[in-house]
Amino acid sequence: MSLVKKPVTGMKDILPREMQIRDYVTKVIKETYAGFGFLSIETPCVEHIENLCSKQGGENEKLIFKILKRGEKLDLANAQNEEDLTDSGLRYDLTLPLSRYYANHANELPLPFKALQIGSVWRADRPQKGRFRQFVQCDIDILGDASNLAEIELILATTTALSNIGFKGFTVRVNDRRILKAMADYAGFAPEDYDKVFIILDKMDKIGPDGVSDELIGAGFEKASVDRYCALFTEGEGSTDSIRQLRETISDHLPDDCAKNLITIMETAKQISEADFKILFDPTLVRGMSYYTGTIFEIGMDGFSSSVAGGGRYDDMIGKFTGQRTPACGFSIGFERIITILMDQDFAIPNATEKYAFLIEKGAGDERIAGVMQEAMQMRRSGKQVLVAQMNKNKKFQKEQLVKEGYQAENIRDFYNTEMKRD
Amino acid sequence: MSLVKKPVTGMKDILPREMQIRDYVTKVIKETYAGFGFLSIETPCVEHIENLCSKQGGENEKLIFKILKRGEKLDLANAQNEEDLTDSGLRYDLTLPLSRYYANHANELPLPFKALQIGSVWRADRPQKGRFRQFVQCDIDILGDASNLAEIELILATTTALSNIGFKGFTVRVNDRRILKAMADYAGFAPEDYDKVFIILDKMDKIGPDGVSDELIGAGFEKASVDRYCALFTEGEGSTDSIRQLRETISDHLPDDCAKNLITIMETAKQISEADFKILFDPTLVRGMSYYTGTIFEIGMDGFSSSVAGGGRYDDMIGKFTGQRTPACGFSIGFERIITILMDQDFAIPNATEKYAFLIEKGAGDERIAGVMQEAMQMRRSGKQVLVAQMNKNKKFQKEQLVKEGYQAENIRDFYNTEMKRD
Repeated sequence: MSLVKKPVTGMKDILPREMQIRDYVTKVIKETYAGFGFLSIETPCVEHIENLCSKQGGENEKLIFKILKRGEKLDLANAQNEEDLTDSGLRYDLTLPLSRYYANHANELPLPFKALQIGSVWRADRPQKGRFRQFVQCDIDILGDASNLAEIELILATTTALSNIGFKGFTVRVNDRRILKAMADYAGFAPEDYDKVFIILDKMDKIGPDGVSDELIGAGFEKASVDRYCALFTEGEGSTDSIRQLRETISDHLPDDCAKNLITIMETAKQISEADFKILFDPTLVRGMSYYTGTIFEIGMDGFSSSVAGGGRYDDMIGKFTGQRTPACGFSIGFERIITILMDQDFAIPNATEKYAFLIEKGAGDERIAGVMQEAMQMRRSGKQVLVAQMNKNKKFQKEQLVKEGYQAENIRDFYNTEMKRD
Repeated sequence: MSLVKKPVTGMKDILPREMQIRDYVTKVIKETYAGFGFLSIETPCVEHIENLCSKQGGENEKLIFKILKRGEKLDLANAQNEEDLTDSGLRYDLTLPLSRYYANHANELPLPFKALQIGSVWRADRPQKGRFRQFVQCDIDILGDASNLAEIELILATTTALSNIGFKGFTVRVNDRRILKAMADYAGFAPEDYDKVFIILDKMDKIGPDGVSDELIGAGFEKASVDRYCALFTEGEGSTDSIRQLRETISDHLPDDCAKNLITIMETAKQISEADFKILFDPTLVRGMSYYTGTIFEIGMDGFSSSVAGGGRYDDMIGKFTGQRTPACGFSIGFERIITILMDQDFAIPNATEKYAFLIEKGAGDERIAGVMQEAMQMRRSGKQVLVAQMNKNKKFQKEQLVKEGYQAENIRDFYNTEMKRD
């Protein structure tokens, strides 16, 4: 077998320039979230196949990278299908492993538990521009808090993190799965059809109200219901007032306090956060995953069609591991999207350390080299970055490369062999 | 299929207490290495099976987690063996992916290229205490520098990183594969037997000189050769003088400058590094991997039998990808070992941010909650960590848990519902 230079299909090598931005963003996010009392945790990248295929992951379960059984467990001769060949796979998100983790360790953890996870996940999606089969997710979750303190803290922390990275003028959209259901109930759809209805509603931003109406009718729903349903969305996204208005219409179908709960979340988050953003009620916001049970949220930025963060309340997932209902709510920053935006903007890392390069001519004596290194160590001690390297034959090209890596030309110094010339 | 709470065999969930130490050590290492001009990079965790099984990884190739082919590529009906089922696997180290990365991107990178990688690797080793099937490696490598500037910088950077983490009094042991070969040649062993001889020599610290001698004879080598060989190791590890002494004996078998090269590395590293360590020549140091071509090194600490860092020069690996020889030298910190040592020492993170917890009584009104959150945001702005959480019924237990997570009891504040009592 001959060696392959390219990374495997759909995954990427990260070059230093991008890595510096990734490291910087990771640092800002970690520091911000630590400020809110979120505790970093980690789960293995490899997860039990039973857990990965437990219907928590929706469509993602079709995209799992499965790992071959090993040793005696692999019985190829008698294997009937894929299931016989594999007992584990790469995680496709961080929420399912978090639920397993919490089920396993709840009694070692504070309650409520505020968790921060930054880690790679894998999905065997069709490769396409800007979408990779290995990518980083960045999740905060609050487990064990049924109150809207959780939602408010998650929105505060996430908007603060985005603001600390340097983003302004973004929009937080919120909704509640129970409002979504109440609207569907009010319109006269049957509960077993809700998911089908929501999948069509989710296309509102792409196909508009007429498109949604057409698709619903095309899917066989009664025109009366569809009309009643679509009339609820004429206002579009709006302030807390639009929740109050909607409440008047659908109050018979809505759990008590559900609307007030969402209004408090919006008002408090907006009042307390120091980030520059709008917060809007969006009755068409669905969020794909069926595990959401209450509040759902998403952050968008002008000029970018897909969201940069999303999340919601999922009070039923952990109970599937423990048998005991544990309220849970999470917010995930679209790390890769953030990095793409910053790379496209040619983002300059604020307050970057000053970088120096000391190039030593070939053939310099040991003492000469030691002298240069000593000077470099002194500068490092005072907080500077100093690269010490051999001077190449093509010194000009070497310096151009260093400038490309962020070294200022005047900080690149030549050290010649003193026995030959003086510098 | 029912859900599984435990992580997969041999892998572990990382609890917040350990994670804080891991994050701190990662930060210190990254900052230290950046100071030396190392650039962070990343490769995918998934690697081509051809590369993983290319005989660069020695025994590790037997421990690969292989990933099942997907879709039409998986032809179970006609699969004869494992090879037919898999086209990729999880990387077992960071050196092989680095070589592929460099082969793929050399013209986009500075020369010499100083790379820093911190990332997980996977080996399906027999699970045992303190050894996991997913673990973090932390490697620095200098590619494209044939001179001993590379070795010196690697030793300086690694000793500085260990020192910055807080370690003192450790020992750097160095040797050179070419000295190992010269000694074997001097003793009269045939080149094809060198690896066999070195595997036995590698046991010196466990079985002593008599044990090594016995095993060599037991392996069928001539007594005259074995005696001549073992006489070279009577001095044990030592200063640069012991290299000079050895050189007099074996100079006919040693490449010019090989001994001087090692002496310069030892003297310069010791002279320049500000860390508190010894550097010793250890003629019995072998390092397992057969890909090493020159200098090899290892760092040990009193009281720990296995090493905390290791590395060496491997000038031939990248050429296997590119067809063009590229000198390379690397040093890897045993990240998991460092973490284990620090956890066992109950390591306290220096200058940790002050942590506060604000506990809000259930039923507190929205305004009350907003007020507490506002105060928390103010303190966060001044650099403090503030957890805002619901007060549990068992407040005493909740506080004990928080103290366990590093909150000082006097920094945990209760906020009662003002409509009921005053705090």
